[in-house]
Amino acid sequence: MRLRKKKHLDQRLNQVDNLLVIEGSDFYIKDQKDKYNLFDFSAIFNNDNPVHLELGCGKGGFAVEMAKKHPNINFVAVEKSSNVIVSACEIANQANLNNLKFANLDANNLLYYFNKNSISRIYLNFSCPYPKNTYANRRLTNYNFLNLYKEILTERGEIFQKTDNKKFFDFSIQQYKECGFGLKNICLDLANSQIDNVMTEYERNFTAQGKPIYRLEAYLLN
Amino acid sequence: MRLRKKKHLDQRLNQVDNLLVIEGSDFYIKDQKDKYNLFDFSAIFNNDNPVHLELGCGKGGFAVEMAKKHPNINFVAVEKSSNVIVSACEIANQANLNNLKFANLDANNLLYYFNKNSISRIYLNFSCPYPKNTYANRRLTNYNFLNLYKEILTERGEIFQKTDNKKFFDFSIQQYKECGFGLKNICLDLANSQIDNVMTEYERNFTAQGKPIYRLEAYLLN
Repeated sequence: MRLRKKKHLDQRLNQVDNLLVIEGSDFYIKDQKDKYNLFDFSAIFNNDNPVHLELGCGKGGFAVEMAKKHPNINFVAVEKSSNVIVSACEIANQANLNNLKFANLDANNLLYYFNKNSISRIYLNFSCPYPKNTYANRRLTNYNFLNLYKEILTERGEIFQKTDNKKFFDFSIQQYKECGFGLKNICLDLANSQIDNVMTEYERNFTAQGKPIYRLEAYLLN
Repeated sequence: MRLRKKKHLDQRLNQVDNLLVIEGSDFYIKDQKDKYNLFDFSAIFNNDNPVHLELGCGKGGFAVEMAKKHPNINFVAVEKSSNVIVSACEIANQANLNNLKFANLDANNLLYYFNKNSISRIYLNFSCPYPKNTYANRRLTNYNFLNLYKEILTERGEIFQKTDNKKFFDFSIQQYKECGFGLKNICLDLANSQIDNVMTEYERNFTAQGKPIYRLEAYLLN
């Protein structure tokens, strides 16, 4: 008794498969142990530009805007819900961008798909805060997730995080520190700062209510 | 690359399997179509007392307290994370209660396990609010979930909900109404009300900070 899928989901996904990086395509390289097919971004984007990853892209508004704004960066927007990513792809399709692709997968499985040192920046935008401590290990800035990100990030790789949840923000800072990330440009009220910012839809609603957005950059220390 | 499981999880689960309702035990009845093995609560609890269900019990503090307080009610505490439910079982084991069992399953799959009209009350305690609207269908008071609950609730079945998230509370009220539930005892500050209340651990922390807890009872209309 799964919840109902959106109508014609498979058909809709097929119509946007040019935007999806899909298992079994030609755009894969084998990992060292010849076990997994990993994304080959040079082949996928047909260039060697840096790749930025958004985890939990929702309907993709942020990724589309960023891809428009930064044509020399390749963006991969990850979303685990196929019901949601199909809408993101449909919206992105109209923007006709060749530096944006979507991947329908769970952040737990990143190492099945992403090569080591392949991502130069990760965006975590308003990830679910999972307020109960019992579920702290589902928070995308949990120590275990940070260790996964370390694997796929390049040498100077960084994580840009935004959230409206102070408790989640404080938790994240503590986890970054424990995991050996440096922190910079920590901001407790993004809307009233000088930081260049592309807003998500959720952020727009939240900011309109005058509520603060917390934001930071974490980076890999040598 | 799944997140790591707690050490010796299987071994620990085996040690508390007296508290877990487990597939393949003798305590099952077949559904009408002879397809699923459904929980047979008369056999599981060895009586026909009403069964109350907690969805997302975490480490089980609430369920244990309620089972102690209401010996003539049978409690089933559901939790999807095996890493978490094992701790709940270990804590409950020390309380030596024969009216409390745990089930390690996902709320999406309730109809695979619960017979129609078998539950007289459902507790939703501080379910994850999933703040982004994109993920509204994961909220446990989403219309689709309410329709699942309708199936397993008895004729006068009810849902008792608590949350610290006003937006989630308002969303829930609207969903109950749309789904044909009646509402009563709506309370916007539980700690300062006359309502009899067993606190969860999360609630205790939250209340200690002086923050309000929202609470309601939804019931099936005839």
